[in-house]
Amino acid sequence: MKAEILSTGDEIRSGAIVDSNSAYIAQKLEEIGVEVIRHICVGDDVDMLASTLTEIGNHSDIAVVTGGLGPTADDVSAVSAAKAAGVTLILDKTALASVQNFSKARKRFFSESNKKQAMLPAGAECLTNPVGTAPGFSLKIGKCIFFFLPGVPSEMQYMLTEMVMLRIKKLQGNTREFSEVRNIVTFGLTESATGEKLTDFSRNFPCLKLGLRAKFPEIHIKLYARGNDEKQLYDVLDSASDWILERFGKRVVSLDGSPLETAVGNLLRRQKATVAIAESCTGGLISHRLTDIPGSSDYFLFSAVTYSNDAKMNLLGVIPSILERHGAVHEHTAEMMAQGAKKISGATYGLSTTGIAGPSGGTVEKPVGTVCIGLAGPKGSRAKRYYFPFENRLMNKQIFAMTALDILRRELM
Amino acid sequence: MKAEILSTGDEIRSGAIVDSNSAYIAQKLEEIGVEVIRHICVGDDVDMLASTLTEIGNHSDIAVVTGGLGPTADDVSAVSAAKAAGVTLILDKTALASVQNFSKARKRFFSESNKKQAMLPAGAECLTNPVGTAPGFSLKIGKCIFFFLPGVPSEMQYMLTEMVMLRIKKLQGNTREFSEVRNIVTFGLTESATGEKLTDFSRNFPCLKLGLRAKFPEIHIKLYARGNDEKQLYDVLDSASDWILERFGKRVVSLDGSPLETAVGNLLRRQKATVAIAESCTGGLISHRLTDIPGSSDYFLFSAVTYSNDAKMNLLGVIPSILERHGAVHEHTAEMMAQGAKKISGATYGLSTTGIAGPSGGTVEKPVGTVCIGLAGPKGSRAKRYYFPFENRLMNKQIFAMTALDILRRELM
Repeated sequence: MKAEILSTGDEIRSGAIVDSNSAYIAQKLEEIGVEVIRHICVGDDVDMLASTLTEIGNHSDIAVVTGGLGPTADDVSAVSAAKAAGVTLILDKTALASVQNFSKARKRFFSESNKKQAMLPAGAECLTNPVGTAPGFSLKIGKCIFFFLPGVPSEMQYMLTEMVMLRIKKLQGNTREFSEVRNIVTFGLTESATGEKLTDFSRNFPCLKLGLRAKFPEIHIKLYARGNDEKQLYDVLDSASDWILERFGKRVVSLDGSPLETAVGNLLRRQKATVAIAESCTGGLISHRLTDIPGSSDYFLFSAVTYSNDAKMNLLGVIPSILERHGAVHEHTAEMMAQGAKKISGATYGLSTTGIAGPSGGTVEKPVGTVCIGLAGPKGSRAKRYYFPFENRLMNKQIFAMTALDILRRELM
Repeated sequence: MKAEILSTGDEIRSGAIVDSNSAYIAQKLEEIGVEVIRHICVGDDVDMLASTLTEIGNHSDIAVVTGGLGPTADDVSAVSAAKAAGVTLILDKTALASVQNFSKARKRFFSESNKKQAMLPAGAECLTNPVGTAPGFSLKIGKCIFFFLPGVPSEMQYMLTEMVMLRIKKLQGNTREFSEVRNIVTFGLTESATGEKLTDFSRNFPCLKLGLRAKFPEIHIKLYARGNDEKQLYDVLDSASDWILERFGKRVVSLDGSPLETAVGNLLRRQKATVAIAESCTGGLISHRLTDIPGSSDYFLFSAVTYSNDAKMNLLGVIPSILERHGAVHEHTAEMMAQGAKKISGATYGLSTTGIAGPSGGTVEKPVGTVCIGLAGPKGSRAKRYYFPFENRLMNKQIFAMTALDILRRELM
C-alpha cells in the first residue's frame, strides 16, 4: 500500500516554520507497513492544491493532508478537495455538531466563520475533532483515499492516532505487512569509513534495507525490515545486529538508538560508579549532555568548567609549574585535572578536557582542533592528545566532548 | 522566478528525521524575491528521483536539491540527475580535487568510495565543498537550473550562502528586487502574548511583512521588507525596530538575530566584567551556551556544576545548615551558590541555578519546573524563585538557563 503526505500552508511553503507533521505521519504509517513514497508541501493556493490532489489521486492508495481547515479565507483545503473530486461543498451535520460542541465546551462564541469549517465536499466522511475547532474529513479522489487533518500538531496527532490509523488498517485488510527499524549508534569512524565496512552487508542480508545517518559526531546505522512474518523479521534483525557488532566491536555505542551519554550512564549505574568532570575547552558540554538523561544525578556528581589557569590551579589542584612548563593544553595538565575532579568530589572516575576549540588560540604546535583528554579511575590515571580537523568551534566542542565520553565508555566496558 | 525545493533520502521520507533544510532554503530564497511554489521529499530511489527531477524541470525556473551526494551506494542524486538529463556520469576534475583536498587537509585516507563523489552528470558545473567531503553541482534539466547540495545542514547552509545565492541573483538579473529581513530576538513572553502586542503592527507598517518564530525559549520577531528603493527599505525597518523596542523594552535581546548568550557576552566585555557560574539543575547548559561564543574566554572564568549537596558545600561554601533547613532548591541556597562562584573565581558576577528539571524529584511544595536563581555582583547578592509549567526535562533545562542569563543581562543593562 503506497501513501503520500501533503502539508499545506504559506507558513511552511515560505520556510517560516519547519514542517514536523510530515515526519510524524511518515513514521506512523511506516510502522504499520504502509510505504510512504513522497511528501509534498504547497501553499494556500486553490489551483495548486487541487492539481496536487488530482496528481496524488492518480498514483497512490492513501494520502494524509495537513492544514488549511481553519475558519479564515486562506484555509482552502475543503474547497480544493471539492474541486479535485469534481463535487460541491455542502454543510455537513456531523462537522457542524463537532465545531459547535467544541465552541460550547470552551464557552467560545460560535461565529459564521466557524460555520465555514462545517462545509465539506459532497461524499466526504467527517472526522470529528474533539481537541480543536477544525473537523477533518476523508474523501476519495481518483483511486486514492485522502485523510484531511488540521495542521496544529497536537490535533493532527490525536486524530491520526484515534481515527485515521484504524481506517487505514481496515483498508489494508489481510495484506498488512509488519515493519521494524533498528538504529545502531556507532562512534569513532567517519560516514564513508562506516559505509565501507558495510559494503557486503546487503549481500549477507538481502531482505534488509540499510541506511546511514551522520548525527555528528555519531554515525547511526539504520536497518529497515518489512515482511509478513513478524518473528522472521526480528530474527533477521538480530542476526544483522550481531554481524554489525562483530565488525564494529566497541565502536557500537547502542543497538536501540540511544546516544553515547545514555550508554555511559547505563554503564556507570550498573557498576554503581560515579563520575566528576573537569572541562576546559568543552565549556560544560560534557556535563550538559550527561545531565540531559533523566536520573543522571545517580552517577553524575560534579563538573568544573575551568577556562582560566587560576581556576585549574585553585580548584582542581593543577600544579603551577606544570602549567608554566607545558601550558594549559597538555597531557600532564589534562591528567592532573582529571585527578583533581576525582579527588575533590570523591567520584569513582574523573574525566577532563583541555584544548583549543577555536577560532583563535591555535599555534603551529597546538593548532585549533587539539585536545588533551584525561581519565582518572580506580586503576590509576592517564591522558592522551588528539587532533580533529574541524575549523568550527561548535563542531570541535562536540567532537572533544564525545571523544571524552567515549574514552570513559570504553574504560567501563 | 519560480523555485522548488527537493529533499532526498529514506531518513526523511520515512520520518526518521524532520526535514529542516527545506524551510531554511525556502526562507533564503524568499528573502531575495524568489517565489517558492512547492517542496517535495522522496527517498533514495533512482527512478522516483529521476521522474521527480524531470517533472520539476518542466515547471520551475530553479530548484535546490539536498542529500544523496555521499560516498555510499544509497546516495543516488548524481545518477538520478544524469538519468533525468539524459547524460552519463563523468569524472569531474574540479570535484575530484574538492574531495581530495578535503581528505588531505584532514589527513584522511582518500578511498575509492570517495572517488564516486567526483562522478558528476556530463555538463554539470561542480560546486566545490570546502566544509565537507561531498561536492555539489549545478545542472540544467528541462527549463530548470538545479542546484544539488549535501544534506548535512551545516554544509548545505554554507554552500547555499557562499555559492548558490550568487548564481541565483545572477539569473535574476535586473528583475531583482531588494529585500531585507530583520530578526528581533525577544525573551520573556509567550508566542501568543508577543503576537497580541503586535496586533496593530501591520496598520502602522503596511509595507512590512511580519513573522513570529518560537525558537524556544526565545521568540524571534521577523520583519520582511521588499521593494525597489533600498534606502527607503532600511528607513522603514529602522522605524519599525524603534516601534517594537518601545513596546517590548528590555524584553528585546537583540536587533540582529543574535541570541541571549551573545548579548550577555557583549555587555560583559563592554564593561570589562567577568562571570562565574554555579549550576545545579541546568547541568552545565549555561556555561555551554556562554562558551559557544568565540572569545568568551575574555569574560567567562569558571563554572561549577554541583549536583550533589557535598559539592555545593565543599566547593561553593554553601553552609550545611542552610541545606538542612531549606533544602537544595531554595533562594538561600541559590544566593550562597552565586556568592561562592564569585568568591572562588574572583569574577565580577556570580550566577547560580538550583531547581527541579524533572521528570522525578518534584514535591507538592516544589514541583518539577521550580528553579531558584541567584546573582551576586558588585552591588550585593539576591535570589528569586520561579516556576515554569513544562513537563519536559530538556525544556526545563533550557528555560532555567535562559532565565538565569536574562537576569544577568538585565543587571548589566
